[in-house]
Amino acid sequence: MSYEEWAAKIVTGDRRAIARAISAVENGEAAGVALLKLLFPKVSPAYVIGVTGSPGAGKSTLAEKLAIEYRRHDCRVGIVAVDPTSPFSGGAILGDRIRMQSLSGDEGVFIRSMATRGRLGGLAPGAHDVVTILEAAGCQVVLVETVGVGQDEVEVARLADATALLLVPGMGDDVQTFKAGVMEIADVFVINKADRPGADRVQQEVSAMLSLVPRKDAWSPPIVRTVATTAEGVARLREALDGFRAFGDQSALRVKRQQEKWRARLLEMLRQTLFEKAVAERLRDGAIDRYVEAVRNHRRDLHSVVEEIVEGSTRG
Amino acid sequence: MSYEEWAAKIVTGDRRAIARAISAVENGEAAGVALLKLLFPKVSPAYVIGVTGSPGAGKSTLAEKLAIEYRRHDCRVGIVAVDPTSPFSGGAILGDRIRMQSLSGDEGVFIRSMATRGRLGGLAPGAHDVVTILEAAGCQVVLVETVGVGQDEVEVARLADATALLLVPGMGDDVQTFKAGVMEIADVFVINKADRPGADRVQQEVSAMLSLVPRKDAWSPPIVRTVATTAEGVARLREALDGFRAFGDQSALRVKRQQEKWRARLLEMLRQTLFEKAVAERLRDGAIDRYVEAVRNHRRDLHSVVEEIVEGSTRG
Repeated sequence: MSYEEWAAKIVTGDRRAIARAISAVENGEAAGVALLKLLFPKVSPAYVIGVTGSPGAGKSTLAEKLAIEYRRHDCRVGIVAVDPTSPFSGGAILGDRIRMQSLSGDEGVFIRSMATRGRLGGLAPGAHDVVTILEAAGCQVVLVETVGVGQDEVEVARLADATALLLVPGMGDDVQTFKAGVMEIADVFVINKADRPGADRVQQEVSAMLSLVPRKDAWSPPIVRTVATTAEGVARLREALDGFRAFGDQSALRVKRQQEKWRARLLEMLRQTLFEKAVAERLRDGAIDRYVEAVRNHRRDLHSVVEEIVEGSTRG
Repeated sequence: MSYEEWAAKIVTGDRRAIARAISAVENGEAAGVALLKLLFPKVSPAYVIGVTGSPGAGKSTLAEKLAIEYRRHDCRVGIVAVDPTSPFSGGAILGDRIRMQSLSGDEGVFIRSMATRGRLGGLAPGAHDVVTILEAAGCQVVLVETVGVGQDEVEVARLADATALLLVPGMGDDVQTFKAGVMEIADVFVINKADRPGADRVQQEVSAMLSLVPRKDAWSPPIVRTVATTAEGVARLREALDGFRAFGDQSALRVKRQQEKWRARLLEMLRQTLFEKAVAERLRDGAIDRYVEAVRNHRRDLHSVVEEIVEGSTRG
């Protein structure tokens, strides 16, 4: 099968072709890059929604119900679930979980788990390439679900067109203790498990914070209360998310965000590609180990070593 | 003043020369690199101790008291306090704070705050170069204090020879909800504010977790209870930290860790240097903006664009 045939199958929604393409993209295979080059100029961008929050906030269940809601509005939906792996143990934190069984029979939904590969939570490298494959498969909406641990919510905000931040009453997600940078990325606040005591207090705290720190882009993030297990409030959440999309289209916000996202991706990919090329060309046969030993023993300093490698890699 | 003269002043402990050198290193000035090249081959490595934990855990106070304790044992002490800045607002999360006033008259202590520069918490780039300057100034112990938000404790572990993780009773730092990767980096657990109710429970939880997940390197992290405000337990903390150092010297652990650290630093510096060089040489006069627009409009795909830039930068 040629890349053109493979790409054509993806566009028709062939599930096996799509799954194999995502694997190829995720693993950085040449086939993945070839497919992306063929598909990218043709795809219509999906509405990419990040769903983030603390472990146990109900992200997975909410993403499932939100997918069902968008299916009801005739959207094809992709779901990318990012499973964090520990950088030290190498094992998955969450372990196996039975994912979104209610969607398993629906041909209009594509679900994919990705590992974060040695990073503590956050986005898998290549996540935006996976989104491209899902867009090629006809998804108008892509939900990216990720466990929020610090830096990572910020990265999700860079992938997504809109970010829904889940808070849960009584989970220690007090707004005062919430990480400062994290609150700023939420385009829609979701108070999930809103049937628990304390939902009013969380809502008041978020409201108070929003009135204290208004956003520069003039968007007022709505606060939506949901009970994901029963789908309560999920229709309102979809309306809030679609409202944010409409706001972005009317204002210059959507274009500005897309520019920021593509710039960040371009620079990150450039950084990684240059590095891999230099390592492949200049640091073979244990060269890194020898440099590391020289520095560890203070025989050479790091700056001189890096200069030597960089000069070598451009001469080669 | 030549770099040689400047370096000589640093070695004699001249505070102004040291402060200026740290600034030069932090800002990536040519003078900083020149000084590092002169100083690095001559320095004796300090014992670098990371002090990390949630906001409000008392890291700053504990670092201060630990510095006093090491001063009592005739060590020169450096303190590097990393202040997180939000990637979105650009402002400091912690704001101004009066730092460690009890140490301000002591000529054997060097205190320096660093910003994390647009990252959500974590280590400032160049932090290990600042450690080198402090080592050149004769510090035998360097305390690196950083707010822990996710990924960053892991980075502190890569800078430090030993990591002390602070937990506080009743602060929501329940071991079950603690991020998996974070617990694994603690060489010494500190239960600070141990005069509060719940200290026993935190200690039991940490003990239980340690017995469930033993470390591969055979070190059993001690659990030390402290009340930083009164210095209670700080002498025991120093003993625990010195015990870990002795363990590392006896086993192969210290060498192994140092190799890992220098390798990570080497690769990170190489990555950044290659990137900056390519941007300076190949992406002038709005070239990035033009590429970003082409990708945003789906006229070109990211992979082709990066290939073009990379080929250009090596040809140049």
